[in-house]
Amino acid sequence: MSVKVGINGYGTVGKRIADAVNQQDDMEVIGVAKRSPTYEAEMANELGYPFYAASKDYLDAFKEKRIYVAGMLDDLLKAADIIVDCTPKKAGYKPVYEKAGVKAIWQGGEKHELTGLSFNSMANYSEAYGADYVRVVSCNTTGLLRTLYPIHKNLGMERVTAVMIRRSADPWDTKRGPINSINPVLNIPSHHGPDVQSVVPEINIQTTAVKVPTTLMHLHSVIVDLKEDVSTKHILNLWKNTPRVRFFEASQGVDSTAKIMEWAKDRGNLRGDLNEIAIWKDGTQVKEGTLYYYQAIHQESDIVPENIDAIRAMTEMEEDNMKSIEATNAALGIE
Amino acid sequence: MSVKVGINGYGTVGKRIADAVNQQDDMEVIGVAKRSPTYEAEMANELGYPFYAASKDYLDAFKEKRIYVAGMLDDLLKAADIIVDCTPKKAGYKPVYEKAGVKAIWQGGEKHELTGLSFNSMANYSEAYGADYVRVVSCNTTGLLRTLYPIHKNLGMERVTAVMIRRSADPWDTKRGPINSINPVLNIPSHHGPDVQSVVPEINIQTTAVKVPTTLMHLHSVIVDLKEDVSTKHILNLWKNTPRVRFFEASQGVDSTAKIMEWAKDRGNLRGDLNEIAIWKDGTQVKEGTLYYYQAIHQESDIVPENIDAIRAMTEMEEDNMKSIEATNAALGIE
Amino acid sequence: MSVKVGINGYGTVGKRIADAVNQQDDMEVIGVAKRSPTYEAEMANELGYPFYAASKDYLDAFKEKRIYVAGMLDDLLKAADIIVDCTPKKAGYKPVYEKAGVKAIWQGGEKHELTGLSFNSMANYSEAYGADYVRVVSCNTTGLLRTLYPIHKNLGMERVTAVMIRRSADPWDTKRGPINSINPVLNIPSHHGPDVQSVVPEINIQTTAVKVPTTLMHLHSVIVDLKEDVSTKHILNLWKNTPRVRFFEASQGVDSTAKIMEWAKDRGNLRGDLNEIAIWKDGTQVKEGTLYYYQAIHQESDIVPENIDAIRAMTEMEEDNMKSIEATNAALGIE
Amino acid sequence: MSVKVGINGYGTVGKRIADAVNQQDDMEVIGVAKRSPTYEAEMANELGYPFYAASKDYLDAFKEKRIYVAGMLDDLLKAADIIVDCTPKKAGYKPVYEKAGVKAIWQGGEKHELTGLSFNSMANYSEAYGADYVRVVSCNTTGLLRTLYPIHKNLGMERVTAVMIRRSADPWDTKRGPINSINPVLNIPSHHGPDVQSVVPEINIQTTAVKVPTTLMHLHSVIVDLKEDVSTKHILNLWKNTPRVRFFEASQGVDSTAKIMEWAKDRGNLRGDLNEIAIWKDGTQVKEGTLYYYQAIHQESDIVPENIDAIRAMTEMEEDNMKSIEATNAALGIE
Repeated sequence: MSVKVGINGYGTVGKRIADAVNQQDDMEVIGVAKRSPTYEAEMANELGYPFYAASKDYLDAFKEKRIYVAGMLDDLLKAADIIVDCTPKKAGYKPVYEKAGVKAIWQGGEKHELTGLSFNSMANYSEAYGADYVRVVSCNTTGLLRTLYPIHKNLGMERVTAVMIRRSADPWDTKRGPINSINPVLNIPSHHGPDVQSVVPEINIQTTAVKVPTTLMHLHSVIVDLKEDVSTKHILNLWKNTPRVRFFEASQGVDSTAKIMEWAKDRGNLRGDLNEIAIWKDGTQVKEGTLYYYQAIHQESDIVPENIDAIRAMTEMEEDNMKSIEATNAALGIE
Repeated sequence: MSVKVGINGYGTVGKRIADAVNQQDDMEVIGVAKRSPTYEAEMANELGYPFYAASKDYLDAFKEKRIYVAGMLDDLLKAADIIVDCTPKKAGYKPVYEKAGVKAIWQGGEKHELTGLSFNSMANYSEAYGADYVRVVSCNTTGLLRTLYPIHKNLGMERVTAVMIRRSADPWDTKRGPINSINPVLNIPSHHGPDVQSVVPEINIQTTAVKVPTTLMHLHSVIVDLKEDVSTKHILNLWKNTPRVRFFEASQGVDSTAKIMEWAKDRGNLRGDLNEIAIWKDGTQVKEGTLYYYQAIHQESDIVPENIDAIRAMTEMEEDNMKSIEATNAALGIE
Repeated sequence: MSVKVGINGYGTVGKRIADAVNQQDDMEVIGVAKRSPTYEAEMANELGYPFYAASKDYLDAFKEKRIYVAGMLDDLLKAADIIVDCTPKKAGYKPVYEKAGVKAIWQGGEKHELTGLSFNSMANYSEAYGADYVRVVSCNTTGLLRTLYPIHKNLGMERVTAVMIRRSADPWDTKRGPINSINPVLNIPSHHGPDVQSVVPEINIQTTAVKVPTTLMHLHSVIVDLKEDVSTKHILNLWKNTPRVRFFEASQGVDSTAKIMEWAKDRGNLRGDLNEIAIWKDGTQVKEGTLYYYQAIHQESDIVPENIDAIRAMTEMEEDNMKSIEATNAALGIE
Repeated sequence: MSVKVGINGYGTVGKRIADAVNQQDDMEVIGVAKRSPTYEAEMANELGYPFYAASKDYLDAFKEKRIYVAGMLDDLLKAADIIVDCTPKKAGYKPVYEKAGVKAIWQGGEKHELTGLSFNSMANYSEAYGADYVRVVSCNTTGLLRTLYPIHKNLGMERVTAVMIRRSADPWDTKRGPINSINPVLNIPSHHGPDVQSVVPEINIQTTAVKVPTTLMHLHSVIVDLKEDVSTKHILNLWKNTPRVRFFEASQGVDSTAKIMEWAKDRGNLRGDLNEIAIWKDGTQVKEGTLYYYQAIHQESDIVPENIDAIRAMTEMEEDNMKSIEATNAALGIE
């Protein structure tokens, strides 16, 4: 049996999740929906994903550009077992999915309250088992959970402080700045800390954030007061056994977010993506019970495998989170 | 029979040419050579390219990092039919290749005088047939030749003026600026005009250049006084029939170099490369006998197919340039 | 007698024109008007410019921030001899000024049709003499006219081609991108060419434009087919005798827009502005009757002295453009 | 009596300190020394600072450019009471100054060991009283000391954690990147923490740092575990009474480093500099005994007043640090 997955919103995230679903054995893309007739719609046709119109407004334009439209969004909702919502935040599709009686996953742009269930594969997979509505947390929150959860579970943490140095726009997004400025997020704490707690309330975390003029990756400088004073090696070993975390080293010439992206392109990753969280091995250090580390987040793709796992949990295809993670990773080429 | 290709220099260009050779039916990578033990050396091992040390200085470092070294550069030179030199400009390997009696291709960073033969697949393939030493012209010159040569040949051009808006660093290169400045190349004309003439001396071209703070692509604003006043459509048709030229349209949401790069990633191109020259269809216009157009150049990869063709010409594997171009394009997935 | 000048819009341009008017002997700032209570409003108070509210919406906010409001915009219009409109383009104040019976100057964001009279101090000062409504052309158009007009008048030009490499945002504007892209202006020709002709219709000019990720200055690569083949020195001499044009040299370390801005700050210019058009002496060259040069434009300030001259012409304070230019320059410290 | 100050090195920092000395009543610039004949040398002439050649290599070039040379560096050393060394780091002039028997101040690029005395006006002015050799700490360390010292002295701090988001190049420096990357400083802690302790050893501080593609200001995200749980207002009051600290508010439109720089230009500050440390009032918050705040550092100018105070202390012109600070600030227009 194969889970029938519909994707509503076929942009930065939607196209990645479509491809990832397509690479799994136990699920299939039965259609992608989008509003406007940009080149992505054309590519959906080329890739063989049935294309559904999310709005009547552009039907003529699709025809003119010879983009084959399989039906309207409603048709997709009827046919799907589950919808992955990749529309812009606050697009407000929940009532539509409820009416169609289809399960749905949202992304981290939405608030926790929308679903009451925020998801991370390692931290709370079982909570999503059989659930109707799930929110996969944002790229930054996913990044924090990936590296903090194993420490929380195995060692315990007194307090976490993280400063998020955020890329200001996606690589394709030429409208947004700044071009030459640092913009602090003056709300303290930034929303990232509470967002981690929406998945694991026990983690005591405070975050601040700044926006900087780069498009490649977010970078976090994380400081953890450990419950126990262990060695740097101990921490590195914990992460070594954690899925979707990857080490990089300046000694190999990988000393920046730009070099990580080059590495991912060289490795042949589709779109040059990096689904894993990047940790600098030589930038990690425990000093008197306090752990310091830097991690880099590929904002467009780290949440992709989490969406796949969420589909398996919600549709009750797999009860064991580690088995789902393993299956997802194998299909996506994550080591 | 398969041509034995060695790659000296395994960085931005070398790794791309290695992969492109590897995708052809009639040639093979017998080894890549590099000086220092960065991650690229490790990846060469993973990809199965025999790795040769270009210097004795780092042999211990290679051992320490468990990078298997098949031999020294000299061993590679002996075994190869032809070397593609991708070392930094003025590295000065010519005497070494001469001594080893191996054919060699250099890249556009070198001067025309090094080989006396500057190469472009459409313009002068036959001159390279059987040649020992060839220079494939730079990314920018290749870009100009791709779009100007068909006009030169079919219509004739009185004069070409091109302003090159150059990206200042490769995406991985975090050392180079500027961060917030425009730097004009004050030598007038810039070297690009004469470089076009090193391949096709009859083209009357003047170029100026500026460097700007971006890493993605070069962009040219080209102005051509035609010998004959034809329609915009006439020009577009010429290019439609020209290999390695691809149209983009703002009406499909592709209105910047960033969007072209997004398109190339979405298409599944290895490393997100674009071997073709990008022309904006809706930015092309003939007005009273003068043609205006913009083209964008993916500096890291447009010269890759030209190198493959040069290998075929120099090793006398194929006499007809169009057949070589077709073979190269098919193997590389260029439509 | 002193001309009573009101400034409507107190942002990037408005604050500069206010200060420039304030430095002249024969005119005075009788008030500046603005909508919202940002720090600029506070500074207007500190500088002693009577502050007028352009909208009732923020009156409470002004009170709360203790910004003294001298009256409403209407009051300012009644008291002024002339209004310099520095509001965002298409703000649509013309009927308001007409009703108040006050002369007005607009900036280059507006279309020529708004006033039917586009202004440059050297090219058509006399046309503005006594006029009620004048548009000072944009920073880029002003830059082109400053350097082209003397050649047009003294030598004659067959054709001008200019590629405008545009900074994408003002230095303070952190909303606008791109961060890492080149965006061509696909409309060919760009609006700059026709805009030059709105002042001097005889100039045969075609322009193209691209936007790049920098905030400092625009840069033009200009190519002029001269009517007469003169020496480079001849052209440099023409400009030497042209007001508001300044030479820079790479040999003095000034080889980029960033270095020009550093020079302007070092010189003690208010806000680090450069009212003059910057020409690279060692980037200027005549080759076989064609002139090539680069010029850099400080987008925020080059039009400031032109506004001052326009005030003098429109209010009939001075009939001779060279005398007005001299007075403006002396007051502003332009050599 | 007026202290005779010589400036060795007339670049980014040297030119600022020269102007600041020149604005004081009790000291004078008796000369500036520089190696190469860039425009800054010419400007020194124009400003009336006697110009000394730091090297014989360029004497001809100075002559050619008509830059008047008053003598060699040695001559300046003989005539000066004190030298402010603004040469590139590790230039190694200490033996030269020792031989000439002249007092000297170095900048933060040098190590503490060079002088054994690292200086901040508020924290340890008296230690520098009568000293021969003093190092004024770097822009970032000065910034940390300005805002932390009053808390340390008045409230006590358990621990300080600061993440330094560093601009990667000065505004004029077009050679350095990155253009599109975040580069973490992998040494943990970064040198800034220990550097604070070179002035106030009792402060328990850990710092990490990243470099980002901007030229305007550094930004710090600072987290302080206070000894006492006070209100946010309490902290703001402390800073209100601290010299060289200035509040900004997003509610006034100043929500980024770019806007702070715009404010400084609008205020008429020479070169658009900001000698004060900028703190966002609405980005400051105490939560359960932990203080969070952001501060921005104008890297080119915050250390300027500290150099002036150091001159006064070393030459025993003023014993009381608050009196020196007041005099310096009044002369420089710091409120």
